[in-house]
Amino acid sequence: MAENSGVVFLGQNKVEVQSIDFPKMQNPAGKKINHGVILKVVSTNICGSDQHMVRGRTTAPTGMVLGHEITGEIIEAGADVEYLKVGDLVTVPFNVACGRCRTCREQQTGVCLNVNPGRAGGAYGYVDMGGWVGGQAKFVMVPYADFNLIKFPDKAQAMEKIKDLTMLSDILPTGFHGAVMAGVGVGSIVYIAGAGPVGLAAAASAQILGAALVMVGDMNPDRLKHAKKVGFTPIDLTKGDNLGDLIAQVVGMPEVDAAVDAVGFEARAQGNLKMRFGLGWAKSHRFYTGQTPVLKYNRQLIQAILHDRLPIAKIVNATVIPLDDAANGYKDFDSGVAKKFILDPNGLLGKAA
Amino acid sequence: MAENSGVVFLGQNKVEVQSIDFPKMQNPAGKKINHGVILKVVSTNICGSDQHMVRGRTTAPTGMVLGHEITGEIIEAGADVEYLKVGDLVTVPFNVACGRCRTCREQQTGVCLNVNPGRAGGAYGYVDMGGWVGGQAKFVMVPYADFNLIKFPDKAQAMEKIKDLTMLSDILPTGFHGAVMAGVGVGSIVYIAGAGPVGLAAAASAQILGAALVMVGDMNPDRLKHAKKVGFTPIDLTKGDNLGDLIAQVVGMPEVDAAVDAVGFEARAQGNLKMRFGLGWAKSHRFYTGQTPVLKYNRQLIQAILHDRLPIAKIVNATVIPLDDAANGYKDFDSGVAKKFILDPNGLLGKAA
Amino acid sequence: MAENSGVVFLGQNKVEVQSIDFPKMQNPAGKKINHGVILKVVSTNICGSDQHMVRGRTTAPTGMVLGHEITGEIIEAGADVEYLKVGDLVTVPFNVACGRCRTCREQQTGVCLNVNPGRAGGAYGYVDMGGWVGGQAKFVMVPYADFNLIKFPDKAQAMEKIKDLTMLSDILPTGFHGAVMAGVGVGSIVYIAGAGPVGLAAAASAQILGAALVMVGDMNPDRLKHAKKVGFTPIDLTKGDNLGDLIAQVVGMPEVDAAVDAVGFEARAQGNLKMRFGLGWAKSHRFYTGQTPVLKYNRQLIQAILHDRLPIAKIVNATVIPLDDAANGYKDFDSGVAKKFILDPNGLLGKAA
Amino acid sequence: MAENSGVVFLGQNKVEVQSIDFPKMQNPAGKKINHGVILKVVSTNICGSDQHMVRGRTTAPTGMVLGHEITGEIIEAGADVEYLKVGDLVTVPFNVACGRCRTCREQQTGVCLNVNPGRAGGAYGYVDMGGWVGGQAKFVMVPYADFNLIKFPDKAQAMEKIKDLTMLSDILPTGFHGAVMAGVGVGSIVYIAGAGPVGLAAAASAQILGAALVMVGDMNPDRLKHAKKVGFTPIDLTKGDNLGDLIAQVVGMPEVDAAVDAVGFEARAQGNLKMRFGLGWAKSHRFYTGQTPVLKYNRQLIQAILHDRLPIAKIVNATVIPLDDAANGYKDFDSGVAKKFILDPNGLLGKAA
Repeated sequence: MAENSGVVFLGQNKVEVQSIDFPKMQNPAGKKINHGVILKVVSTNICGSDQHMVRGRTTAPTGMVLGHEITGEIIEAGADVEYLKVGDLVTVPFNVACGRCRTCREQQTGVCLNVNPGRAGGAYGYVDMGGWVGGQAKFVMVPYADFNLIKFPDKAQAMEKIKDLTMLSDILPTGFHGAVMAGVGVGSIVYIAGAGPVGLAAAASAQILGAALVMVGDMNPDRLKHAKKVGFTPIDLTKGDNLGDLIAQVVGMPEVDAAVDAVGFEARAQGNLKMRFGLGWAKSHRFYTGQTPVLKYNRQLIQAILHDRLPIAKIVNATVIPLDDAANGYKDFDSGVAKKFILDPNGLLGKAA
Repeated sequence: MAENSGVVFLGQNKVEVQSIDFPKMQNPAGKKINHGVILKVVSTNICGSDQHMVRGRTTAPTGMVLGHEITGEIIEAGADVEYLKVGDLVTVPFNVACGRCRTCREQQTGVCLNVNPGRAGGAYGYVDMGGWVGGQAKFVMVPYADFNLIKFPDKAQAMEKIKDLTMLSDILPTGFHGAVMAGVGVGSIVYIAGAGPVGLAAAASAQILGAALVMVGDMNPDRLKHAKKVGFTPIDLTKGDNLGDLIAQVVGMPEVDAAVDAVGFEARAQGNLKMRFGLGWAKSHRFYTGQTPVLKYNRQLIQAILHDRLPIAKIVNATVIPLDDAANGYKDFDSGVAKKFILDPNGLLGKAA
Repeated sequence: MAENSGVVFLGQNKVEVQSIDFPKMQNPAGKKINHGVILKVVSTNICGSDQHMVRGRTTAPTGMVLGHEITGEIIEAGADVEYLKVGDLVTVPFNVACGRCRTCREQQTGVCLNVNPGRAGGAYGYVDMGGWVGGQAKFVMVPYADFNLIKFPDKAQAMEKIKDLTMLSDILPTGFHGAVMAGVGVGSIVYIAGAGPVGLAAAASAQILGAALVMVGDMNPDRLKHAKKVGFTPIDLTKGDNLGDLIAQVVGMPEVDAAVDAVGFEARAQGNLKMRFGLGWAKSHRFYTGQTPVLKYNRQLIQAILHDRLPIAKIVNATVIPLDDAANGYKDFDSGVAKKFILDPNGLLGKAA
Repeated sequence: MAENSGVVFLGQNKVEVQSIDFPKMQNPAGKKINHGVILKVVSTNICGSDQHMVRGRTTAPTGMVLGHEITGEIIEAGADVEYLKVGDLVTVPFNVACGRCRTCREQQTGVCLNVNPGRAGGAYGYVDMGGWVGGQAKFVMVPYADFNLIKFPDKAQAMEKIKDLTMLSDILPTGFHGAVMAGVGVGSIVYIAGAGPVGLAAAASAQILGAALVMVGDMNPDRLKHAKKVGFTPIDLTKGDNLGDLIAQVVGMPEVDAAVDAVGFEARAQGNLKMRFGLGWAKSHRFYTGQTPVLKYNRQLIQAILHDRLPIAKIVNATVIPLDDAANGYKDFDSGVAKKFILDPNGLLGKAA
């Protein structure tokens, strides 16, 4: 059996690549399963939500293997896996989902009722998400493989676009979900709060949904510069106190058709949302929360990428680094560089990088 | 020209029926209009939102004529009114709407851009809603009549169900909007917070939308008793601190498919909504605000009423009183009786009452 | 191993209850599966679409075991069945679906891509639908059980309403799909063509979707009489040549908001639909085809039945007969009686009947 | 009062620019109206549906002024026009709509109930569409102006893109409606039948809706060549009998996610649609008919054009000709050239052309 190694959380601001167990065909409770596959990880990205844990703002236990943005090749398939086979190159939605409960049947895989005894919704390598081992590693196990995975039909073609396709596991459908739920459509004037990778993915999503104008606000000059370079209208939040005024300077009025928050809960000390009734209430607002159900979107996003409609790698400035450099990747990302880091655990991205 | 009288706001907890001007064919800015009609008011209801003003929690100016729930007969029609004529019996949506702006064209008449210089959305007899004269009166003017009004095809049939049809101007579509936005559908398990008239209208709406079970929570024993009498499952909020537990006693688990808040901002000292990120956020919630766009719903609700599918008068315990008793009606309603008061300004409801 | 018997198709107008194989845990190609369950059949209905085969209008092979409307109790569960167990009482959607392909993930289980090598979509006991053995039998095998089946939470309660719940496997969601696709909603004026069981299920569905008025047209006096008895407005098609006129006599104009065809292809010699462009085209029509995806609807329909909102057994005149009387049931149904036949293969419906 | 001239239909294959009446503020029945405006026509296009009349396939009366694709400047406004003024540059939806009936309120302006006594739906210069005078002329009257018209906020900016914006009156929203009703979304594989202007507009619409791949089929080599030049994948229908095979050569399988018919009824001698039940029926198809409700789409399409997301003029090969050359324009268009002709009745397009 092959050896394995992965990114392990060791406490606040400390991660390290260590030797870890080779994946087993069992669920976190230790029950043997037949519906899983074991993947040789082709690419796995560092996510902003990994930082919530690494920064010590959660109860993530030390020793946990991180990583929920995974693309890989099947090297072993359980007896109940009927529609995938060894050698297939697949994208892994970050949501672990059973495909058999009420919410999965309704395409709400982000709140699967069966994969996390603690509450609805599971994920790989994440605190309170069911205990599934993370995929910033050489090898990882994916359960309910027939349901969760989508195979790329042409492996060589997919490897050529792997830096784009690796974004399908989380960041792209997360941004897309934001844009869809915000009601972005053809001709929309859109504001995205935050020019980090998720903000840029939301902006790219707004673009392909037909938005007329996509503004991206941030205070980080590098990120604003990059946002502009890849075709969005930067809003420099250091230039004024009133967002409406900054928007009016672009649009002619302090109004947009749709807005997406891609900053996240760390922007506030409290992690609370406050909304005044009265005038705000009267505006007929809609407000949505929740994790994206990746599987609802990734087939269509794959097609958009494969037909050159969605250059997400370029938009988020995808940057490949070896698995062994993961700790530096975390550090750089934390500093606010305008990059999205892809780990290359098995040295397969050579050409793509 | 006929004399007019109406319910006038005279300061905190003080309303009085006084002689008022006969309606003019002009907008609040004093500009003559041709698209309006003057109605002899057949019925006009006291609304919980009138109480916000009367209780002194708003900046409503004294001297204002109240009333935005209006049904009436056309006694005069402007030159540009093409599809209605004198003698027609019509229901008046509480939203004043122009029918010509972007939001009206998109069925969002609750945020019409043209009828209120202060902000989006207008109403009759309401603070900050554009200055349109209220309709708790003998006569009232309705602008953009062809767009706003729906005529009852058979006047005699309509007068027989007038206590139901009078609820079309606000309370029924308000409850219906709540139920629709909450996603109520066939088989839904529903919780409505508040057993006042709007809560009951939301419950009735949930029922006709196909809900399997409609629970209505309140602390007022009379209102709970009435809710039960008309077919809903009462949840007595004085019986426990935890709503989930009270619901679980009925449903078997602390969970519903859809919920509607029909209590309103007075329930909190601050008029703010607070929502914790984290667990709450992860549940994929949706949250909606805003006034109902009556015109989007009232045609279908009329048909449901006329075909005996929606006995809303009985459900909200419609109670007719003379216009001159309006002050008492406000007082009784404020005390929390399980009644919805209909004013009868022209003595036309005799039989219906 | 228990013995089995079932309804076997023996050629035009000929069916017979014969001894058949006990179900095996394998797919029609003979491959062993772990995701299936074996059911003791509690109830199984005769469907109008079974008649297409029995009347000899299809290429159904003799020897085929019929039956796709199945409710049963699990007596054996494969190793990969995780969320159901022996003893569970479950409803079986007539669509065999894998829960793992693109269409199943999108709730389009009626066109599953994996269960029928011939084309999209599978069913039990039906020609050209993948070769899955039918369930008008004592025992039957259901694959992909975790995905396909819904368990009734309270077995005793379910057995009390079994004559209603048995309609969940096909006829009720079929009628519901028709009503939903036709756009029936609160206040709709609806016309259903055909007062057979599916027409009545569509009518019942329109009712719970909030229709103001549900008309059902037919030429069979018994079926019209029954439709009237259970609360719909019968349209006797023998009374005139022009459907518009007959509708206008009820509604006042020759117009409805939504219409459902519940007659089927046998109404025409050719099995073709013809539509004139020009005026018909200009009316902005919508036209839908296809089999209902049962799993999309049955959870909500279960809740409606269990909470006494949808008395479908009474509406379709559910009539229980022993399995051994199946041949007579087919004959009676073919004659146009106003009944829906439920077979009772294991004598478990005694009390319900 | 200014003189007027316009394109007059004089019988099969015969149109001529003649002197015509200056527009009056009255409806086709001769009733004076206050809600209309008179426009100096800035641009007005020749439409494929004009050809239906000119080719003699309709009952269009001789003497009729043609033209329903109109953009113009207001030179006179009725007393009831409140939100537009003289000098405004506006786009005119081809659908004449009252903005006051049930269907207009529901955004279905293509089947307005009030503007055509013969049936639902009106248009300018078109047989059986209510008798509204056409706009291939120097001047034209538009009723219900506040409702129907959308003003371009910046006139100079609009004149710079006038060859794009002129497509808003019909062809672009017609193509967009086709793409929307066909379900085109992000990542869709799309087939458009017909590479004429409407087909190209549907293709452009599919593109901005996020389609991954847009194929356009035709037999006309010039049109195919142009379709390729502007970015679509041409399907040469002369290369094979089986469309599925031609599609499979591009996509790898004979299957698309969405299809739009942009050929029209002239493709068939009979003007009938035939659909086989059975296999076709089982595929869960959806089929839509009707004219586009322009007003539902043109605001968002304007924004897309003004922000350089939708170069529709280039895509349909917009070609400006003087009004006096209209007859030649009709002839050339009839011959199948890959052009969309814009008439310039008042010599205002000099720069744009």
